[in-house]
Amino acid sequence: MNVHVPRKQLADSLGHVERIIPNRSSNPGLSLLRLELSEDKLIFSGSNMDIDIQATLKADVEGSGQLALPAHVFAQVVRALPGEMVELDFGENELEIISGNYATKLQLADSNAAPLLSFPKEYRGHLAGGQLAKVLSHVRYAAAVAEYQAIFRGVKLELSDKKTRAVATDGFRLAYYHLDEASGLDAEFVLPARSVDELVKLLDGGEVKLELGEGQLSLATASYKLNVKLMEGSFPDYEKIIPSQFPVSISLDAKTLSEAVSRVAVMADRTANNRVDFFIKDGSLQITAEGGYGRSQEALEVSQEGDESQIALAYNAKYLVDALNPLQDELRFSFSGTTSPSLLSSLSDLSYLAMVVPLRTG
Amino acid sequence: MNVHVPRKQLADSLGHVERIIPNRSSNPGLSLLRLELSEDKLIFSGSNMDIDIQATLKADVEGSGQLALPAHVFAQVVRALPGEMVELDFGENELEIISGNYATKLQLADSNAAPLLSFPKEYRGHLAGGQLAKVLSHVRYAAAVAEYQAIFRGVKLELSDKKTRAVATDGFRLAYYHLDEASGLDAEFVLPARSVDELVKLLDGGEVKLELGEGQLSLATASYKLNVKLMEGSFPDYEKIIPSQFPVSISLDAKTLSEAVSRVAVMADRTANNRVDFFIKDGSLQITAEGGYGRSQEALEVSQEGDESQIALAYNAKYLVDALNPLQDELRFSFSGTTSPSLLSSLSDLSYLAMVVPLRTG
Repeated sequence: MNVHVPRKQLADSLGHVERIIPNRSSNPGLSLLRLELSEDKLIFSGSNMDIDIQATLKADVEGSGQLALPAHVFAQVVRALPGEMVELDFGENELEIISGNYATKLQLADSNAAPLLSFPKEYRGHLAGGQLAKVLSHVRYAAAVAEYQAIFRGVKLELSDKKTRAVATDGFRLAYYHLDEASGLDAEFVLPARSVDELVKLLDGGEVKLELGEGQLSLATASYKLNVKLMEGSFPDYEKIIPSQFPVSISLDAKTLSEAVSRVAVMADRTANNRVDFFIKDGSLQITAEGGYGRSQEALEVSQEGDESQIALAYNAKYLVDALNPLQDELRFSFSGTTSPSLLSSLSDLSYLAMVVPLRTG
Repeated sequence: MNVHVPRKQLADSLGHVERIIPNRSSNPGLSLLRLELSEDKLIFSGSNMDIDIQATLKADVEGSGQLALPAHVFAQVVRALPGEMVELDFGENELEIISGNYATKLQLADSNAAPLLSFPKEYRGHLAGGQLAKVLSHVRYAAAVAEYQAIFRGVKLELSDKKTRAVATDGFRLAYYHLDEASGLDAEFVLPARSVDELVKLLDGGEVKLELGEGQLSLATASYKLNVKLMEGSFPDYEKIIPSQFPVSISLDAKTLSEAVSRVAVMADRTANNRVDFFIKDGSLQITAEGGYGRSQEALEVSQEGDESQIALAYNAKYLVDALNPLQDELRFSFSGTTSPSLLSSLSDLSYLAMVVPLRTG
């Protein structure tokens, strides 16, 4: 078996697969890459138990067969190769990798030791890859980190004949992104936030095909196939906690607000939730923070609406900055009360909604 | 007391001082920045016990006096400021920092708690800052890391009426950089490698003045003054271990060699000194490495000289790559024997010399 393939394409393709395959694992087979040669294709696959990945690469192939080799060593060798083209020469127990004046002999592993993965034959759904990436990447920040209840560490996808929506929440904040676009699937499920990170890196401008199987979502782009394990558990019924009455709301430029919050928060006390205080009155937003080193403040002019003439409340500065990050241009910041959730959204595009629960004060 | 100063200049100047002042210290006074206002100048100073630093900044100053404040909080506030200009307003116990719509009140510390530093009034030596930076930065890599004898963690400077030379060694490799230039000082001393790193960052195109005091080297550029504590102990007599007889020597392009060594070393065993083997014969350099995953090799054409027709030896790949890093264009690699030091130098410029001791083989 012998393969000729351009180095750059081999390295790119291998790079994506390598990111998913664990470097060390209690199951040594998991750190192996499975390589299949057939006709004019080189097919790599690997898994970290949460994601199965398969990459297909056009190549000049002689012979056919399957084998396994240590994924990270192979990827490291390929990255270092000097030439434009790479020759892979498969022997009984070793793979010779030749490029320019350089040659490496890499020992093969038992191909039965590498995970044997299967991917759907048919996919019932599809979306533009860029759209799915956008939906997921807008909300991913709001998923909880390790210390919370497992289901909060996921991103919920809601697919129907009317919408494609992603939601994430850690109980203190929530983000959703709503697209009026059908994928052909009708289902709701939760993906681990870490798998979402990998997914977003692999989605490109082309179409992504979708299929829902037993406990997994399968995706296929032109070059990659993925099975992503779904999370178990029930996601909170978030729609009923999104407030609809806002005694005060303001609008201003998103970047201006984000920068002011970051600046004022320099003096905030990190051991007290990075608290920044908001006081809104007469079209002015006063942001203040106080900590062990002193006190800082900044006033911004805002366009103010609502039945109440003023409101005072406090937030975790980090949560605000995270929620503001996907927003550009003018935003609306709507306050339902001093202890009930506040909403952030764009004035011009209502696809993205962020909710932040104020800190209890006093 | 009141100061107006451009934000960018304040942030740059403070950035250099902040890097030296420890963030946490068992001596809380060390984390303070001393600030002096006088006429049209703002003077910051601080110390980490190994380096004292003073920065001078032109500013619009009303009043005069001295005070102290937490260096890292002050620097963080300044970095975040929104406006082009900064106003510093000094009260009894606090400093108000105003820029654009933003204002911070930072509590002052007792100015007696901050280190009181003194810098020489006169400097007898001087060099071009860029030259001193070049001399030091060429050799710094060869200094030992923490686990070795203390003096090996330093960089030796040799100053005389004929030369300015820096040397570093960790016992397995050595680098020197020699400049036929007098600084006006005649002395030899050892600077901690970490202080050298800071020094190199502060040296600019302008002149640097030098003075040697009790256990310290003092340096002054247009904007900064530094006292760098010298290391105690006797630096090895390196000149007598530099070989002068070379049965084999080769010349080739530095970058070509460095890249080939890096590539082959991918398969080297990290637990066995990253060993790469060299075999030189008939104008060819064969580089090989072998480890748990397999074996790699690359052959390079070289121009070979010397009385012996061939030589085989081994190196720590990392040491070779470090030694090659300052070299460009054609280099000479001279082999004194399989267990005695090898030398690396440029064919065109003999200022820089690197010595690497081969690994014991067999």
